[in-house]
Amino acid sequence: MDKIRVCIIGAGGYGGCGAIELLCNHPHAEIKAVMAKHEIGRPISDLYPHLTGFCDLPLLDPGDANCPDDFDVVFFATPDGVGQKDAPAWIEKSIKVIDYSGDFRFNDLDTYKGYAARIGKPQEHASPELLPRSVYGLAEFHRAQIARADLVGNPGCFAVSCNLGLAPVVKERLIEPDSIICDAKTGISGAGKTPTPTYHYPARYDAINAYKISGHQHVYEIERQLSIQAGEGIKITFTPHAVPLCRGILSTIYATLKPGQDLKKVLDAYRAFYKNDVFVRIFGPDKPQISTNVRGSNFCNLSVNVDDRTGKLIVVSLIDNLVKGQAGSAVQNMNIMFGFDETAGLLHPGMYP
Amino acid sequence: MDKIRVCIIGAGGYGGCGAIELLCNHPHAEIKAVMAKHEIGRPISDLYPHLTGFCDLPLLDPGDANCPDDFDVVFFATPDGVGQKDAPAWIEKSIKVIDYSGDFRFNDLDTYKGYAARIGKPQEHASPELLPRSVYGLAEFHRAQIARADLVGNPGCFAVSCNLGLAPVVKERLIEPDSIICDAKTGISGAGKTPTPTYHYPARYDAINAYKISGHQHVYEIERQLSIQAGEGIKITFTPHAVPLCRGILSTIYATLKPGQDLKKVLDAYRAFYKNDVFVRIFGPDKPQISTNVRGSNFCNLSVNVDDRTGKLIVVSLIDNLVKGQAGSAVQNMNIMFGFDETAGLLHPGMYP
Amino acid sequence: MDKIRVCIIGAGGYGGCGAIELLCNHPHAEIKAVMAKHEIGRPISDLYPHLTGFCDLPLLDPGDANCPDDFDVVFFATPDGVGQKDAPAWIEKSIKVIDYSGDFRFNDLDTYKGYAARIGKPQEHASPELLPRSVYGLAEFHRAQIARADLVGNPGCFAVSCNLGLAPVVKERLIEPDSIICDAKTGISGAGKTPTPTYHYPARYDAINAYKISGHQHVYEIERQLSIQAGEGIKITFTPHAVPLCRGILSTIYATLKPGQDLKKVLDAYRAFYKNDVFVRIFGPDKPQISTNVRGSNFCNLSVNVDDRTGKLIVVSLIDNLVKGQAGSAVQNMNIMFGFDETAGLLHPGMYP
Amino acid sequence: MDKIRVCIIGAGGYGGCGAIELLCNHPHAEIKAVMAKHEIGRPISDLYPHLTGFCDLPLLDPGDANCPDDFDVVFFATPDGVGQKDAPAWIEKSIKVIDYSGDFRFNDLDTYKGYAARIGKPQEHASPELLPRSVYGLAEFHRAQIARADLVGNPGCFAVSCNLGLAPVVKERLIEPDSIICDAKTGISGAGKTPTPTYHYPARYDAINAYKISGHQHVYEIERQLSIQAGEGIKITFTPHAVPLCRGILSTIYATLKPGQDLKKVLDAYRAFYKNDVFVRIFGPDKPQISTNVRGSNFCNLSVNVDDRTGKLIVVSLIDNLVKGQAGSAVQNMNIMFGFDETAGLLHPGMYP
Repeated sequence: MDKIRVCIIGAGGYGGCGAIELLCNHPHAEIKAVMAKHEIGRPISDLYPHLTGFCDLPLLDPGDANCPDDFDVVFFATPDGVGQKDAPAWIEKSIKVIDYSGDFRFNDLDTYKGYAARIGKPQEHASPELLPRSVYGLAEFHRAQIARADLVGNPGCFAVSCNLGLAPVVKERLIEPDSIICDAKTGISGAGKTPTPTYHYPARYDAINAYKISGHQHVYEIERQLSIQAGEGIKITFTPHAVPLCRGILSTIYATLKPGQDLKKVLDAYRAFYKNDVFVRIFGPDKPQISTNVRGSNFCNLSVNVDDRTGKLIVVSLIDNLVKGQAGSAVQNMNIMFGFDETAGLLHPGMYP
Repeated sequence: MDKIRVCIIGAGGYGGCGAIELLCNHPHAEIKAVMAKHEIGRPISDLYPHLTGFCDLPLLDPGDANCPDDFDVVFFATPDGVGQKDAPAWIEKSIKVIDYSGDFRFNDLDTYKGYAARIGKPQEHASPELLPRSVYGLAEFHRAQIARADLVGNPGCFAVSCNLGLAPVVKERLIEPDSIICDAKTGISGAGKTPTPTYHYPARYDAINAYKISGHQHVYEIERQLSIQAGEGIKITFTPHAVPLCRGILSTIYATLKPGQDLKKVLDAYRAFYKNDVFVRIFGPDKPQISTNVRGSNFCNLSVNVDDRTGKLIVVSLIDNLVKGQAGSAVQNMNIMFGFDETAGLLHPGMYP
Repeated sequence: MDKIRVCIIGAGGYGGCGAIELLCNHPHAEIKAVMAKHEIGRPISDLYPHLTGFCDLPLLDPGDANCPDDFDVVFFATPDGVGQKDAPAWIEKSIKVIDYSGDFRFNDLDTYKGYAARIGKPQEHASPELLPRSVYGLAEFHRAQIARADLVGNPGCFAVSCNLGLAPVVKERLIEPDSIICDAKTGISGAGKTPTPTYHYPARYDAINAYKISGHQHVYEIERQLSIQAGEGIKITFTPHAVPLCRGILSTIYATLKPGQDLKKVLDAYRAFYKNDVFVRIFGPDKPQISTNVRGSNFCNLSVNVDDRTGKLIVVSLIDNLVKGQAGSAVQNMNIMFGFDETAGLLHPGMYP
Repeated sequence: MDKIRVCIIGAGGYGGCGAIELLCNHPHAEIKAVMAKHEIGRPISDLYPHLTGFCDLPLLDPGDANCPDDFDVVFFATPDGVGQKDAPAWIEKSIKVIDYSGDFRFNDLDTYKGYAARIGKPQEHASPELLPRSVYGLAEFHRAQIARADLVGNPGCFAVSCNLGLAPVVKERLIEPDSIICDAKTGISGAGKTPTPTYHYPARYDAINAYKISGHQHVYEIERQLSIQAGEGIKITFTPHAVPLCRGILSTIYATLKPGQDLKKVLDAYRAFYKNDVFVRIFGPDKPQISTNVRGSNFCNLSVNVDDRTGKLIVVSLIDNLVKGQAGSAVQNMNIMFGFDETAGLLHPGMYP
């Protein structure tokens, strides 16, 4: 089988870099072009010298009319607002699109408007006609739809973490739906590649803070997906924290168990829900997990606990924010969209220590 | 006024070292002896070379019959079990005692037994007769009693963080008492000086994990103090996390507001409760706090937020675990016990970055 | 004695912040104004919240004609080019000036031009008439002149480290003068407060690199001072490295011993040279030093070693780049200029861990 | 072609773990057994949970008589002293051996004795008869001999870094042979997995130090290999430093150029020497290198510079100490020994950031 031809737009950021790392050794895909807004003409390996010899393609300007377009799939590793403007041109050419931003995470305009309103953005979408054919790109929730999709909205990193951590008990209605608290801790790579005062090394090396309390942009997406799972409206309290990791999200998820529930029943629900999901691993309280168990890999490790004194479910959900939380999920979606083994190019253990 | 004479037992650990750092420039106190179980005879500045020239006293064996005993106060910077055995000998000589461990945090035997049972220790106390005269050493709660005490149980680091973060709303009954969740993140210095596989640098530099889920030893102490404040029994769900900081505890505290409460009322309660407390600083959502704001200092910064969508109070409580969470509180207690200005030797801003 | 009145220009950077930390508790000095180019009107404690309650002065624009000028000393915590333009106005008012930059580290115009040429800057100085009265602010070299000076050029951080590490053997001519190699490693705070791609947390947390190989701006200043000590021209090979520390410079200094020299003779030379210098501590090979021994303090620790197999002297010089390497030296100079105890406000051990 | 069967002895350490990471996806090799002294019977993925699903073999005791022995190659990921005792039994069964320690880095007894003497160990070797058939496992130096060997002594991590950084100029005699200084900085993983006070997270997170000044065990091995290249005796001055990285060695290498040499000639020598070596990349001063360029990969990046003012060659040599400095070189050697493509299983770019 010939390899599919991949183009990565927004290759200059961490999300683009992560996709290149995964695709440069992929058995069924080949990177044919990398595009960005800046540094046009420079080899991507100038920006990311560890890619030297693996991907030395020059950065192209996606706005340039002479840009090649003979691809099978385009990754938009770009922020909100780019994909919704530029995706239609590719879709029209029967090229599949995987978008990293919030642009295609909501498959109807009203829901998208709710998202935009929540985060204080204009409530228009540049390509509302594409929304109904877009699919939310969390394979563990929507594998079948992704397989048929030509437009996938890759999920937010916190959303991957919290959605995977909550879906089984929300779907099976084992918890009080208004009791959910997600306390998430992220490595700094989640903030992207652009330097800021907050993430300057001396400001961060021994610092921790909560931010966007009650106002993070991924909350809406989590509530949307959990509501679909639950068949009823779900609201969560969500607090992200920046911790001096590079990679990793650890979300500690609290919810009040319904009467009659216990650890065994809850663990059974998790195991049942994810029984076909290679990349989700379920553990009980006897196997505490640490973020290095998933670092550099596409796995999500879930540690399921119950506090018998207070009747709380406590789930610790661990991912690498740049892999399962971003580029890894994108490649997993690509595999599914093209009928490859879902794990192609993704089955490695990461690196320790 | 002559300086009071201080002896530090357990000087080899971080808690002893922290007390020396604060006391070596204290206007009213002088370190007269440092004691430990190991390295007897070596200058303390061999173990902590940054103390060279500031405290070069040799380590003495507290079990040695020839040890000096002409002190005004002894710090037991020791783990559970030491102070309860050895404090009586000092108390009998009219020497005041400040103990860092759980040994004197509960002023009656039944409560102590409850603590011991919770953490799986033997339910005997070596000096039960001392418990009624011991005082819980959180100045913001028990200043008057500390002033009269000759035996103070210095609080646990997580307990300082959560108690200060919750007392006003618990006391004023602004929250549902069964809704409290404390999600605490600590720097690794909180685990002490002894090397372990978990806190070996390569195992920790880019790692985060939850631990002792539902079972941390400080929970009992927090519930005890909050119950005193509330005048009713309080239970909390508490999850500690180890993050790759050296110093700092950030506790994110969640509770359901009672009907009719809002941010303004809650903020007023915090400001009223701490109006005489120099070392507690209250901030609203407009002034997000980061752990470096208190690093190296004796302050506790509280950031008070309300999530209007879910009706949750979210308090972010920040301390330096080795200062306000340990040696700083001990010195603050000493100041109060001896009638000094409570802030003597403690008013410096820390170091940034 | 009344406290002297201090103004800090360039208060927004790490060097200004460091001076405030040291001066806010200084027994003989009081900060009367803080000035900067940006954030005019905001309290300095908005920029550095750990200073809250210690220094809440609003930032003033030094270019504003209404700025106060009733000071005894002004710190220019500013980069090259600022002090040379603005210092004269203060000097004329009989206000002493301590400048952090390269502007006043060379006390004649020709030498300054050599410096400017080496680092590729214009070879003019805005106030050449001030150069002859300026003194190089390394107390261990020029204490007497500093005491008489009204204009001090505070040394560069690498220069403090290498000058102190080499002066005794250069002065006593114990080493081959053309054999000196300085391999310096600095914490990232040395690069200042402005965020850059290189020092973005994710780019730096597990990274090390050499930079400005053969071309660092401090080389000229080191060679100048060592040549004065030696009474002959000294050249060095100097390579700085950025390591993922926040604070600290460790310089490993290599030189070929002259025939007949050995460890004892060399150690004697170091001890003799620094016999009156509180802030320089000399150690032999039996007491290896680590940067935390000086972190947060104004000390320079020198570890003196000889490799008998190769006849090399190996000196490891350790400072905190923001204290002895910057603000601490500035305050030490201020103390000397005003006849205070040289150690006033500077005798504390730092913080560990 | 069937996969070769690999056994890893000493699997519990970082060096064993690194080999498993590389071999679990190797196209021509399969891990058949993992052995260790401790934790016998536990799956290796209990010790290294990131290996879950990739290598879950139970740890076997290599001293157990029932241990399997149907392997093609055994990795001794063990410290000095183990391989020399236990390798003969495997060699006798025609199983190839790759040893990580100093035991087989010297192919005659006298040289080994010199090594042992230098580092203060007993000057006996348990299997002196094996020494003549052992080959020093640096492919770039001894590829042809490795291809014929059944016993390879994998090089030390510092030795890989310095040998690769110096060989071309030593061999071509472009530098003064008595002028070499190697200033090496290593990540903490180089010290292994066993926790120690020095590498406890709080003691290390913001600390740097030099250690074993003039006395590191890899010096002898570097001098031996360079002397072979030079055809004359080479001595070096070598100072290792521990920096708060996890992974990476950066060695800054200084030497005095012989008259008539310049940057171009030197660069040509490096390019010529390594023209057939995929894993060595040569850069001039225009492309400064940072350790993240090789992190997680088997590459050695060499940055070649000349200081025209002082006539010094300055080479910055960068490797990942756990890959090219250890397990990667071991796998590279295995590939060569079995006639596989030298890069099999090793061609990936690492992970960034």
